[in-house]
Amino acid sequence: MRALVFDDELKLETDYPQPTPAENHALIRVAKAGICNTDLELVKGYMGFSGVLGHEFAGVVERGPGEWVGKRVAGEINLACHACDVCHGGAPSQCPHRTTLGIDRHDGAFADYLTLPVENLHALPDAVSDEAGAFVEPLAAALQVLERRPILPSECAVVIGDGKLGLLTAQAVALTGCDLTLVGRHAEKLALAEKWGIKTAREGELPASCADVVVDCTGQEGGFASALELVRPRGDIVLKSTYHGLPQADLTRVVVDEVSVIGSRCGPFAPAIDLLARGAVDVESLIVARYPLGSGLEAMERAREKGTLKVLLDVSN
Amino acid sequence: MRALVFDDELKLETDYPQPTPAENHALIRVAKAGICNTDLELVKGYMGFSGVLGHEFAGVVERGPGEWVGKRVAGEINLACHACDVCHGGAPSQCPHRTTLGIDRHDGAFADYLTLPVENLHALPDAVSDEAGAFVEPLAAALQVLERRPILPSECAVVIGDGKLGLLTAQAVALTGCDLTLVGRHAEKLALAEKWGIKTAREGELPASCADVVVDCTGQEGGFASALELVRPRGDIVLKSTYHGLPQADLTRVVVDEVSVIGSRCGPFAPAIDLLARGAVDVESLIVARYPLGSGLEAMERAREKGTLKVLLDVSN
Repeated sequence: MRALVFDDELKLETDYPQPTPAENHALIRVAKAGICNTDLELVKGYMGFSGVLGHEFAGVVERGPGEWVGKRVAGEINLACHACDVCHGGAPSQCPHRTTLGIDRHDGAFADYLTLPVENLHALPDAVSDEAGAFVEPLAAALQVLERRPILPSECAVVIGDGKLGLLTAQAVALTGCDLTLVGRHAEKLALAEKWGIKTAREGELPASCADVVVDCTGQEGGFASALELVRPRGDIVLKSTYHGLPQADLTRVVVDEVSVIGSRCGPFAPAIDLLARGAVDVESLIVARYPLGSGLEAMERAREKGTLKVLLDVSN
Repeated sequence: MRALVFDDELKLETDYPQPTPAENHALIRVAKAGICNTDLELVKGYMGFSGVLGHEFAGVVERGPGEWVGKRVAGEINLACHACDVCHGGAPSQCPHRTTLGIDRHDGAFADYLTLPVENLHALPDAVSDEAGAFVEPLAAALQVLERRPILPSECAVVIGDGKLGLLTAQAVALTGCDLTLVGRHAEKLALAEKWGIKTAREGELPASCADVVVDCTGQEGGFASALELVRPRGDIVLKSTYHGLPQADLTRVVVDEVSVIGSRCGPFAPAIDLLARGAVDVESLIVARYPLGSGLEAMERAREKGTLKVLLDVSN
């Protein structure tokens, strides 16, 4: 099969072995897949990954337990052991024995086929297109902000970062009805948020200590510093993105202002699918380019360009 | 009056002006005062402080509203405005307009007299000596860990750092009945904890991801890194101490492991006094030296020696 493979270098292979599903796993033919910043980090060496990239996808089950065959699905990316204390404690996405689709020792979605345990699968309703289905994973991750730190309708929230994750997170947070401002640097991206009715500001425009909760979607040391500026004493900062290297962080301010800093990673698929089906979140506007899988290298190049929103791979093509 | 004053340099003054209490403030004759690491930081330039140092004390009200005169007291250190949103929101210790006894624009306790608003005062019962009374403030700060992140009896907790704050915090945390280990570097300090029935370990001895909650009392970049090692996925790290400079912090791990990092500062005086009165916390063992106020410079020198536990100033002497 065709596969975009990273192994010290990124290659498009045409005779990569098709994976064989284990028991209670499904073989899924990928329809659409999204390129995430994590993919760009993986090809720089993050996680020491080698194999097929890609963890945002929609596809069709071709083989597996009968009730799944023929179903259009999105899939959760963590393959948990379901035997350890963490799994039994109700956090299988944090299983220390997990592998992760396209990120850690499990081949991913930038290929004609992938396998996943059926327990990871979520059927897509007709109202969610394959393209929208490729956004289920990142939208679920955006919703995880609210799982980790519920935001009240009466609260004042700031999302920092107008990249694809920031724009998705801002939409998720806006659904709470809170008083939300998206802080960013790019006029055309802030205009998107304005179109959705979300207030926007440039860096430095908001007053200090104005927010009950700040979500940092920048993955930058400077984003965390801004979050500390904007959050009120005893307020909360949710970290949505991984950071480059080992950032300097003003932990003294965390102590003195009694702030809480809350990490957030993968999220719940069911509400993400539901919100997409109801049209409550606009993902269409985030797509800036579509490439067939055969042009996967160009697609990755395009995604790497500074300021690019979502690049999709059309794998069925 | 006599006062240990910092103004670019540390001096013992003998004719420093005695403060005049404002309305609803009390004039307090200091009996005992404790030297805190914050005092050592202030004389290195932290907060740009100038004035009389000292914020841990017990004393007697000499002047003020009648019901307070003659009472032995300890005093909360934050002088809040009681008019702003933060104060009205129930967090006057976080008031952005506050001054702070011996730390920020309000003369402190290393002097014959200090003033505080009477709302900051807490009467000391007979069962709490003047020496123990000087520990009310740091014990309240240790209890604030539990205000910020309640620890369940069934949880596994680790306190990192066997300095005076770590030893006090370990005692406060141990009262919850949780499975607690104090991690430190100093045999004689760990022996103190063992005497109190608290398990101890050296750095590196505990397995990774073993703790539901880790309290970092080191104020060191390495302490935060250890806390990240020891806390389980979705566990909590409470920061008890301010940090030197701008530490590097693995925020990516906070995200990936979905850890919460919770800042903790000043705490509730009433339970601290109650626990001291009931003898539930041993502060006597933390005292390594006592100096009269007239030897305040030597006392500060002694406190500065690496590994020193609590140095007390006997101000009545």
